[in-house]
Amino acid sequence: MKRFDEIDEQAVTNLRVLSAEMIERANSGHPGLPLGAAPMLWTLWSHHLRLDPQAPDWFDRDRFVLSAGHGSALLYSLLHVSGFEVTMADLKQFRQFGSRTPGHPEYGVVAGVEATTGPLGQGLGMAVGMALAERHLASQFNHEAQIVDHFTYSLVGDGDLMEGVSHEAASFAGQQKLGKLIVLYDDNQVSLDGPTSRSFHTDVCQRFESYGWETQVVTDGNDLAAIDAAITRAKHSQRPSLIAVKTVIGFGAPGAGTNAVHGNPLGTAGLQTLRQNLNWTAAPFTITPAVAQRAQQAIEQRGQQAHHTWNQRVQQLNPTTLAELKRVMQQDLPLDFAQQLPVYDEGAEASRLTSHTMIQKIAGKLPELVGGSADLASSNKTTIETDGLLTADQPGERNLAFGVREFAEGAILNGLTLHGGVRAFGSTFLVFSDYMRGAIRLAALQKLPVTYVFTHDSIAVGEDGPTHQPIEQLMSLRLIPNVTVIRPSDPNETVAAWWQAMNATDHPTVLVLTRQNLAVLPRTNQLAMTGVARGGYVLSPQKGLQPTGILIASGSEVALALKTQAKLATLGQDVSVVSMPSMDLFSQQSAQYQAQVLPPQVRRRVAIEMGATLGWERFVGLDGTIVGLDRFGASGPAADVLPALGFTVDQLVQAYQQTHVGQQQLNVI
Amino acid sequence: MKRFDEIDEQAVTNLRVLSAEMIERANSGHPGLPLGAAPMLWTLWSHHLRLDPQAPDWFDRDRFVLSAGHGSALLYSLLHVSGFEVTMADLKQFRQFGSRTPGHPEYGVVAGVEATTGPLGQGLGMAVGMALAERHLASQFNHEAQIVDHFTYSLVGDGDLMEGVSHEAASFAGQQKLGKLIVLYDDNQVSLDGPTSRSFHTDVCQRFESYGWETQVVTDGNDLAAIDAAITRAKHSQRPSLIAVKTVIGFGAPGAGTNAVHGNPLGTAGLQTLRQNLNWTAAPFTITPAVAQRAQQAIEQRGQQAHHTWNQRVQQLNPTTLAELKRVMQQDLPLDFAQQLPVYDEGAEASRLTSHTMIQKIAGKLPELVGGSADLASSNKTTIETDGLLTADQPGERNLAFGVREFAEGAILNGLTLHGGVRAFGSTFLVFSDYMRGAIRLAALQKLPVTYVFTHDSIAVGEDGPTHQPIEQLMSLRLIPNVTVIRPSDPNETVAAWWQAMNATDHPTVLVLTRQNLAVLPRTNQLAMTGVARGGYVLSPQKGLQPTGILIASGSEVALALKTQAKLATLGQDVSVVSMPSMDLFSQQSAQYQAQVLPPQVRRRVAIEMGATLGWERFVGLDGTIVGLDRFGASGPAADVLPALGFTVDQLVQAYQQTHVGQQQLNVI
Repeated sequence: MKRFDEIDEQAVTNLRVLSAEMIERANSGHPGLPLGAAPMLWTLWSHHLRLDPQAPDWFDRDRFVLSAGHGSALLYSLLHVSGFEVTMADLKQFRQFGSRTPGHPEYGVVAGVEATTGPLGQGLGMAVGMALAERHLASQFNHEAQIVDHFTYSLVGDGDLMEGVSHEAASFAGQQKLGKLIVLYDDNQVSLDGPTSRSFHTDVCQRFESYGWETQVVTDGNDLAAIDAAITRAKHSQRPSLIAVKTVIGFGAPGAGTNAVHGNPLGTAGLQTLRQNLNWTAAPFTITPAVAQRAQQAIEQRGQQAHHTWNQRVQQLNPTTLAELKRVMQQDLPLDFAQQLPVYDEGAEASRLTSHTMIQKIAGKLPELVGGSADLASSNKTTIETDGLLTADQPGERNLAFGVREFAEGAILNGLTLHGGVRAFGSTFLVFSDYMRGAIRLAALQKLPVTYVFTHDSIAVGEDGPTHQPIEQLMSLRLIPNVTVIRPSDPNETVAAWWQAMNATDHPTVLVLTRQNLAVLPRTNQLAMTGVARGGYVLSPQKGLQPTGILIASGSEVALALKTQAKLATLGQDVSVVSMPSMDLFSQQSAQYQAQVLPPQVRRRVAIEMGATLGWERFVGLDGTIVGLDRFGASGPAADVLPALGFTVDQLVQAYQQTHVGQQQLNVI
Repeated sequence: MKRFDEIDEQAVTNLRVLSAEMIERANSGHPGLPLGAAPMLWTLWSHHLRLDPQAPDWFDRDRFVLSAGHGSALLYSLLHVSGFEVTMADLKQFRQFGSRTPGHPEYGVVAGVEATTGPLGQGLGMAVGMALAERHLASQFNHEAQIVDHFTYSLVGDGDLMEGVSHEAASFAGQQKLGKLIVLYDDNQVSLDGPTSRSFHTDVCQRFESYGWETQVVTDGNDLAAIDAAITRAKHSQRPSLIAVKTVIGFGAPGAGTNAVHGNPLGTAGLQTLRQNLNWTAAPFTITPAVAQRAQQAIEQRGQQAHHTWNQRVQQLNPTTLAELKRVMQQDLPLDFAQQLPVYDEGAEASRLTSHTMIQKIAGKLPELVGGSADLASSNKTTIETDGLLTADQPGERNLAFGVREFAEGAILNGLTLHGGVRAFGSTFLVFSDYMRGAIRLAALQKLPVTYVFTHDSIAVGEDGPTHQPIEQLMSLRLIPNVTVIRPSDPNETVAAWWQAMNATDHPTVLVLTRQNLAVLPRTNQLAMTGVARGGYVLSPQKGLQPTGILIASGSEVALALKTQAKLATLGQDVSVVSMPSMDLFSQQSAQYQAQVLPPQVRRRVAIEMGATLGWERFVGLDGTIVGLDRFGASGPAADVLPALGFTVDQLVQAYQQTHVGQQQLNVI
């Protein structure tokens, strides 16, 4: 039986025209990709991709990530024709405020969009994470039946493959031999500024082969059978597959094959020409009955059947496995051990080490915890000691060696989390969070509860010098919406910080940890759990009814603030010390609580943090002082660097004494 | 004549032991690389690299970038033995505070260090930039004689090659056919966490061939003649060269060949074993006389001779060429056209378009201006219209097509600037500055006057949605030390912003520009040049002697502030409007000037910026209000998105009215 007929060809044209119409109506969007890539995506969706549009969250569905997110019109068209909850009215609202069809695919806005894409290269990284999650879970749940057994597909463009993160992600995927990852490369040789010959001379297949991928070329991007054969072959590969599909950008439209058609609507005349060239006469915003029926059979019914079969398999699982599967699918973490967390009454250790203890504790309770480091596990202290490395040969282990690939690490963590069934964390030095910043943003935008363990959090790193000493990173991370940044001051706050991270459901958490020892601070064994949850709290109150001033600090500087408080007491100044592990959480508290911690009338305030000062004015205002670092660090033993850059009790006492709340406030308007 | 003898072998051992001694004395550092890579660097330095240690800034010297910056001990040892101004006392101060031999190589601290390295992958990117500058300048200055004609070398490790930026940079270099770029790959198959087999399975030579590089393998990293032959061959290649040199990390030390020797001092016993294994008996911190003499001949004298010959060629240049060469070498920009800059009295245009006008103006005056975009030139408006693309066939042109490679773009801009002789700028969307953040940091740390043109600066981007709408980027860039961020409010401020960027000598400048039109604002034709230079200024004063409040805004929001001022006037509120294009520059002004713009007693202040609010408290304090965005944006036409997110005159009037400076300030302590 022929696998493709004229209805398939009609479906391709229908998708092309519909996508162009959406863009035209919005007067905004990228027609080039939909017109070129419609055949490969129709082939994939109608003959391979296994989805249940009525149950879009079906756990064992295939995953599809449109890494070239600017082609969103095609994805929405496919979702519509496949029976997802995307109506024709939604398509007409493409790129409108509040619509279900925003300019780039956004996870959580409409079912069927598996990831937020648009920032190039990251979709591929997230697909790698999804494929990794699939294999990891398969090793866990497939002992009785094939419960987790799906493919992960992605469509990438030239822009994706130029980005560095594509190198990191593909190299990692090759290392991991993720055979169920299949990437369609829309090889149209045009990017936004012109032909890729201007800037992209790479032999992409050779490059991916160097990573250990299997590669294929489809020379005619309109040849459905050839695309189908390539996908079929890729599904049998033990290695990740790249299928380079030679397409014509903007196929059928005026300017096809050039960048003119990349990112601008075709215009009325252009759309008319497209319809003529493609011989399309149906009314605008139409799916023809034949196409609708074919989609219903080839996508919806096929998917439902697969889902049904899967349900049957699941029903036959033994009750324990079934319960565990359900728990994992619902992301229902067994966080019932708050009372069993370690409490430190004395001693000192680096917060990266307390974090290590917490990782062991959590890993022991949560089978779904997986994580790793960008080649700094021995420094970040992030190894799950009961487990080995998660590799192709040992897919059930839980330690990930990301290699020196911070950006892909971030994207893969997002992909693992998007897949579901795992709880993911990753680590590197705080200063190199810069390298993965794009992925942290996408975690926040997608509301993913990823945990980042960023150690070596200040100039106290010492000898490695300014390239390795974070300055602006801490405040910069606080600036990203929907990210919770926690910089604990001692072992008890570190325990509480990890607990916050594990209890997060709709945002990522950044844990900012030290290389150097932190002494257990007085009273944190009582106060840290609630104090960290509130972001800031009075760790050491003044003696009298009201403080003469307030010292506010985070992380390793809280100990310094306490010493400064003691010194100031000998000088007749009765100040309180506020530990502020998380500005974000503190800013979410009630005005009443905030005023309790930082009484509004007390304006003599000094903030202390070994990082950029800009931002601390939120808490010290125009009248306070910030002891921070608005310069780069310096190489040398920490014992030399810290005093040289202003972090001694004497210098803090001086800063406090120089904080005179001036006359001007008495005459405020 | 044999090119290598036992003195060369002695030199290699001497460098190995000396490096290990430095690390041992510092009790901190990375012995693995120096012990493994000493042979290849001795070969390079003694037989190829052309430097004049007495004139380290000689313009036509070869460039060498130690991309694997953690191997700094070896670089310092080489600088010492070569006759640079690095004394044995300096080597003994390795990694000490204030020393000339910091933990990672830092540009500007000691002559001979061509770039600050340590953040992996970026050294390779900077080397690409240097090689690109060389070829560009050669096409300009070599008509009469070979004035610019040198190689650029880099040493990279496994970590460098795992990083995404290495992909972007190498792919770009292949595209550009940078034949005089030669990269030595310290192929020791070990990274910090263990053998690279854990995470790095890539066929590196195949990968680089896919980029259009020539590759060679040296199977024995101790074979000086083989290394020498490979370098010699690479020097004749028309394509960039990668030489994979198989080495043993930590050669000669206990734990050689494992990660145990990567990042920790050997210890007294380990150092003793090293000496025994290498049969080395000289006193600690010694260069043997034979090695010293050989280095003097093979590096210093050879380099001086080359420099002398070059000087002779230069003397024979015709006076015009000579004057121009000197000007360019001294980075003496002909910035004598301040009076000829455009002044706008009326109308409206996007600041990206005014920027385009300025680029043409500057390009016409400054032959050394080169720049480009990460595949968004048509959106960023950064093309120099008189010029074509800078390619292998047209090396003298000035437009760079970086491809969708923001991080490498940043590193290449750094390399171009470090090389000297060019003035470099680069562009992308503001939101994707995240992707190149690591390189912006290195520009700031190295004090490089790079200009970044970041357009599409707010939610006003509209339909592309939250993935393309910057929120936290603007404030995040302000946090990086030594970066000047300027967000102009209209065409005149945009002219002034570019002028600031061009006059910078020791810091990078970020220009934050709009996609949408900005009307020429009243009085900016008079005030913008000095106003922007001061970072903030009163654009529209109150009517009375003292304002009842202050509206502070940047960029496109200044126009909104002016309208709000007018509306407030009708409500009896006499406020001033402060345009704040650059917080950085404003914070550098005298307290007196700052108080003039923001009278301390006026506490009723509203800051308006379509970005993260954290940080604006520096100017509005505890009593003011910030109208900003602490959430992600939304896809939709800008005309819908802006009001929905709070940016209308009515909403700003309301924000002002709700800013009551409360009772508490009357009782401040």
